[in-house]
Amino acid sequence: MKKFVNDVNNMLTESLSGFAKAHADLVTLQLNPNYLTRQTKATNKVAIISGGGAGHEPLHAGFIGKGMLDAACPGQVFTSPTPDQMMAAAEAVQADKGVLFIVKNYAGDVMNFEMAAEMLSIENATVLISDDCAVINSSFTDGRRGVAGTVIVEKCVGSIAETGADLQTCKALGDKINARTASIGVALRSCTVPAAGKPTFEISETEIEMGVGIHGEPGRKREKMRAADAMIKDMIGAILTDLRLTDLAHIKGTEILLLVNGLGATPLMELYLIYNTAEKLLTEHGLKIERSLVGNYTTAIEMTGASITVCVLDDEIKQHWDSPVQTAGLRWGV
Amino acid sequence: MKKFVNDVNNMLTESLSGFAKAHADLVTLQLNPNYLTRQTKATNKVAIISGGGAGHEPLHAGFIGKGMLDAACPGQVFTSPTPDQMMAAAEAVQADKGVLFIVKNYAGDVMNFEMAAEMLSIENATVLISDDCAVINSSFTDGRRGVAGTVIVEKCVGSIAETGADLQTCKALGDKINARTASIGVALRSCTVPAAGKPTFEISETEIEMGVGIHGEPGRKREKMRAADAMIKDMIGAILTDLRLTDLAHIKGTEILLLVNGLGATPLMELYLIYNTAEKLLTEHGLKIERSLVGNYTTAIEMTGASITVCVLDDEIKQHWDSPVQTAGLRWGV
Repeated sequence: MKKFVNDVNNMLTESLSGFAKAHADLVTLQLNPNYLTRQTKATNKVAIISGGGAGHEPLHAGFIGKGMLDAACPGQVFTSPTPDQMMAAAEAVQADKGVLFIVKNYAGDVMNFEMAAEMLSIENATVLISDDCAVINSSFTDGRRGVAGTVIVEKCVGSIAETGADLQTCKALGDKINARTASIGVALRSCTVPAAGKPTFEISETEIEMGVGIHGEPGRKREKMRAADAMIKDMIGAILTDLRLTDLAHIKGTEILLLVNGLGATPLMELYLIYNTAEKLLTEHGLKIERSLVGNYTTAIEMTGASITVCVLDDEIKQHWDSPVQTAGLRWGV
Repeated sequence: MKKFVNDVNNMLTESLSGFAKAHADLVTLQLNPNYLTRQTKATNKVAIISGGGAGHEPLHAGFIGKGMLDAACPGQVFTSPTPDQMMAAAEAVQADKGVLFIVKNYAGDVMNFEMAAEMLSIENATVLISDDCAVINSSFTDGRRGVAGTVIVEKCVGSIAETGADLQTCKALGDKINARTASIGVALRSCTVPAAGKPTFEISETEIEMGVGIHGEPGRKREKMRAADAMIKDMIGAILTDLRLTDLAHIKGTEILLLVNGLGATPLMELYLIYNTAEKLLTEHGLKIERSLVGNYTTAIEMTGASITVCVLDDEIKQHWDSPVQTAGLRWGV
């Protein structure tokens, strides 16, 4: 296994420590249980807390800061955080108006966040993210998986929380975005979980995994490697079907956010090539790309591959997408 | 070759088109000859123009925007841009106070930028970047290579240019930063140039290339893969020697900028682990890390590896590092 690692057992702690030192202006790290909060705690707002297994960086800790998350709870690589982490994080932030958990739909995450939610004396609610339209039910979950659409939810819910909105209003916006968002990924090469020491799945040099999950879970099918445009066309097709954007008469001019997300080892040059094709296909289909984001935002360690996410916008989502954000992973307007 | 590509010959154009569409608020793309300028041209300032082979994204086009570059000229992957690109870019920007070219020290880049500089009727000067302390002379160059330190030069020179500083003042700051900056990289796995279709170099699962160049050029030596800390210690040692920061009596409290740069396929989690160790070693050595940056800023397509860059700060460099910047790749203060 070729990784920058000293002792696999300390890898997460060392990485989190480096993150906290590099972004000391933004975050504070607590260990045992592990969680990160904003350096300057916000008051008089709903506290937005997310978490999940490590290996998806910058998700989630990279989105802590004004305009987005108040805290994040990282588990070990591809392993759910434990309820004590979420409870400690919720108690550490100023949750004057309650706590909203943003949880990707994986069985372990759901169970542990639920346990924390039940034990917590602070008023709380949860937004469950299930934007991956590739498969229903998968290795680690019942129902659809939560993937890169999480970034859009965290950005917009973080924004509305800054306005002082109450818990149910924050949750409603998160649920709305989740319902209007679809993603699908494709892997050209597997990732390697450090503790496993070998690739999560075997794949030949002529094959791809269409619909792969962000932990290397199987997708829709193992296919022959094709030209980028052919793969992207299938991905866009899956998204349009899922979002019911196939009825041409009704969608003309519908505004969308297009996110092209790298899974870790895909060069930016290729991500922009994917964007170029996705933009063309969606525009030809009659949709209007009003907002976009290209880069590594929800990774699968060093998987070679990419995902495409489309979120159907409305004025409220646009407003909260555009608002200032100051985090390690997303920063604008400040 | 597993890449998101349609036709290798169109890959750059498709990628640039995607970049320009995704960042239409920031840049405008011209093709044949290829160059990108700011969407809103700046006036009454020195125009800062850079360029070089593609494959190092976000360098350079990702640094076009207020506070950084006015234009960038991308060559084919790992291939110098041609003089007509630099001339067209220089003529397209508002170069009221002349043009400053920022050029990484590779023979082809140097020759082609020099040719453009000579043919150009606009007053111009050049800052040559040579921050790589790994080797003197390499596959593509005489003298030291220019690598991730380029980002610091482009940021700070871009900033001083916004103040209306004259050409020689802009050049002087760039030259000063280059003289105070040292970088060294290490590769765990090779990149693959699309047109070549196979890895640039062979390397076994137990070896690393210490001092690798950003095109996969040989470094100081092929070594056995070791724990991250052991590799990082050697890299920091090389940098401290190069910057003459070994005399402990004189360096205590010296302020530095620490940049940990991914070469394309290295997970952010590992980059922060590298930062954690580098920060510890440099701090223990008596240096004061006043500024930092961690991420993929000067890549080598999808090489697995990372580089470490140290820039010795002064008040002027700090001021221009901190000033607002609004580009696809770096954004703060706006």
